[in-house]
Amino acid sequence: MLDILEIINKKRENKELTKEEIKYAINNYVNKEIPDYQMSSLLMAICINGMSDEEIFNLTDIMINSGEKLDLSMINPTVDKHSTGGVGDKTTLILGPIVASCGINVCKMSGRGLGHTGGTIDKLESIPGFNVNLTKEDFIKQIKEIKLAITSQTGNLVPADKKVYALRDVTGTVESIPLIASSIMSKKIASDASKIVIDLKVGEGALIKTKEDAKKLAELMIKIGNHNNKEVVCVLTDMNEPLGFSIGNALEVREALDFLDGNMAPDLKEVIYKLASLMVSLGLNIKEENALNLVKEKIENKEALNKFKEFIKYQGGDLDKLTVSDRVFSIKSPYTGFVKEIDALKIGELAKNIGAGRQTKEDIIDYSVGFVLSKKVGDYVLQDEELVKVYLNKKDLSIADITNCFKIENELGELNPIIYEVIK
Amino acid sequence: MLDILEIINKKRENKELTKEEIKYAINNYVNKEIPDYQMSSLLMAICINGMSDEEIFNLTDIMINSGEKLDLSMINPTVDKHSTGGVGDKTTLILGPIVASCGINVCKMSGRGLGHTGGTIDKLESIPGFNVNLTKEDFIKQIKEIKLAITSQTGNLVPADKKVYALRDVTGTVESIPLIASSIMSKKIASDASKIVIDLKVGEGALIKTKEDAKKLAELMIKIGNHNNKEVVCVLTDMNEPLGFSIGNALEVREALDFLDGNMAPDLKEVIYKLASLMVSLGLNIKEENALNLVKEKIENKEALNKFKEFIKYQGGDLDKLTVSDRVFSIKSPYTGFVKEIDALKIGELAKNIGAGRQTKEDIIDYSVGFVLSKKVGDYVLQDEELVKVYLNKKDLSIADITNCFKIENELGELNPIIYEVIK
Repeated sequence: MLDILEIINKKRENKELTKEEIKYAINNYVNKEIPDYQMSSLLMAICINGMSDEEIFNLTDIMINSGEKLDLSMINPTVDKHSTGGVGDKTTLILGPIVASCGINVCKMSGRGLGHTGGTIDKLESIPGFNVNLTKEDFIKQIKEIKLAITSQTGNLVPADKKVYALRDVTGTVESIPLIASSIMSKKIASDASKIVIDLKVGEGALIKTKEDAKKLAELMIKIGNHNNKEVVCVLTDMNEPLGFSIGNALEVREALDFLDGNMAPDLKEVIYKLASLMVSLGLNIKEENALNLVKEKIENKEALNKFKEFIKYQGGDLDKLTVSDRVFSIKSPYTGFVKEIDALKIGELAKNIGAGRQTKEDIIDYSVGFVLSKKVGDYVLQDEELVKVYLNKKDLSIADITNCFKIENELGELNPIIYEVIK
Repeated sequence: MLDILEIINKKRENKELTKEEIKYAINNYVNKEIPDYQMSSLLMAICINGMSDEEIFNLTDIMINSGEKLDLSMINPTVDKHSTGGVGDKTTLILGPIVASCGINVCKMSGRGLGHTGGTIDKLESIPGFNVNLTKEDFIKQIKEIKLAITSQTGNLVPADKKVYALRDVTGTVESIPLIASSIMSKKIASDASKIVIDLKVGEGALIKTKEDAKKLAELMIKIGNHNNKEVVCVLTDMNEPLGFSIGNALEVREALDFLDGNMAPDLKEVIYKLASLMVSLGLNIKEENALNLVKEKIENKEALNKFKEFIKYQGGDLDKLTVSDRVFSIKSPYTGFVKEIDALKIGELAKNIGAGRQTKEDIIDYSVGFVLSKKVGDYVLQDEELVKVYLNKKDLSIADITNCFKIENELGELNPIIYEVIK
């Protein structure tokens, strides 16, 4: 007979758990037979002592089987995209229409914001009328008709992960590569896309702070994918400055529209072109360079922009009613010099504080607020030239707090690349 | 401002915690500001990553200051003795009278049974009328008058340890040398004896399974003692077979009386002589060999036995009413050979199952039940010769369960010593 204390002791002593032991722990935690304080002690032992590949495969499998699974076999090929979360990360809004306009089915389930990072679902909800809660049937019908649908999680997918994640969030057990990998992959596998491109953010503004850890996580997610017959590609991208110009829900939707209309922040352009060509290459089974040409064509001829508008309208959204706050303040640079760093983590926190994100699960988001950067890392700025526009509504912000996010120096020195590496 | 998640993350990353951080965690856990699930995650990180000496000193200090402290300065010299817990361990009952009869104040606070090990307080409560709840004033008055008092914890000593220990017990975080050391030493220091002898049990029947771990624990407890101006001596003793002949509450009191009357199990004799001479040597500041002679004298002239009777009577106990069950069964050996092992852990569990210990905190102990070994490790036994007498009352026991505790072989081979090492 299995016993949770023996399982905890085993992991504390850095021994490998069997599938039955992991199943016992997870399923009984979901059933409330095992209390939080025992699960958190087991999770900490896993964080510190790690897990073998076998343990990770088993954990992922048990997570997937804790709830419903989607079946998308009738709409092949499907390509999914996941981002590990960043500040100003509106890539899903832009990639979906591009890839769909290239003829590939994009079936995307997205989440809400967590911590200092925004969520795609919150961003879409800033569009008046937009419905983020599609039924399974509507979701599949929409993909068949327009090749693109984005919904918040449909049905009871991977409920065990939801419960375990909530506990990890409050017990210092988030930063574990095996637990992160199995959490992401269990959701991707349960939602059944056959090919998955993962945008793995690295840097101070991201969950993963170093390239070494990012590589380990990427390799692990690819292994889990292969073990489940899913093709996974990971792109390691920089998250030291916010991605693109805007941070905040309606502002990011507006940037997505601008982008598809040809006005592109250079870093966002580089990330989008890379992710889009990988997704199209996987989906159509063509070379990446050919895929890139197709992507460029669909943007230039506005098919991608039109697909975006079609998709928003199909889910009930009215882009004409998208509003950003008119309490706009122009923040000037206190110095002349090169923008050496823009602290994504701090800007994310400030965006949350002014209402763009939630402090607690119950908070209501103010979609109209946020920031638009006038300068990006690498730009030269004069004293009293505009650094950033701040869109405020009900909450206030100190000027020093926002200017402190920018590090301005005489010498530019070496900059981080935007894309570190593609791992397949 | 301190934050529990940052403290947990720091320990997970194997960084040293400051005194303020440890204090914040412990005090807010006691205040119920920090929930069990965060404390258990921190405890697991401590179990796996360990603690520096500085962290351990600070933790011990915070534990001590979480409640009242005893002041025994008016009754110097005082010697305390602690056992890390074993099966059949009645040494406190025997040592107290011996050391007191040598003229040293023995002020002992004892606990109840935990897991498969019995507690001194439970054993004393098997004597009808015996009062285990002395007030601080009665405790000190009794020591002044007869030099010996044993009480269950008086006042609110180290309440933080009590709460943390209860959580460790159910979260797989008991087996940590720094946590064990600071738990034992915080109680010893708060109860203020100036000299402390610790009987550190090693083996399958004990909390500490290996000599290496026992040495580490001993050295750590000595360091903590010295840091607090307490002289500490640790004796590493074997706990692979039960200590002495009897296991069970009234049966162990009876063995203590027998021992002081001259009928001694050889292993118990060796342990008692060693611990008693160390205590007397420390208490009177004389050489250990002179102390040993004094101990022998006090046993031979029955002063120690009379001290035992005086002490029991002083606390209200009536030894004439001590009863053991009359449902006694003689268990015979299934084989002829040498007794190679007697499994202390299993016997302890069986004793608990027949009522000598508690399964849950609410259980009521049956003082009259237990085991008396007819053979000890090293003895030769014939088939159908008696191995052990079983004293049952309301609960039953299978014969195979008890005979399986004995390993009988043709060759004796090498035996463990009873005393491994004295560490000062």
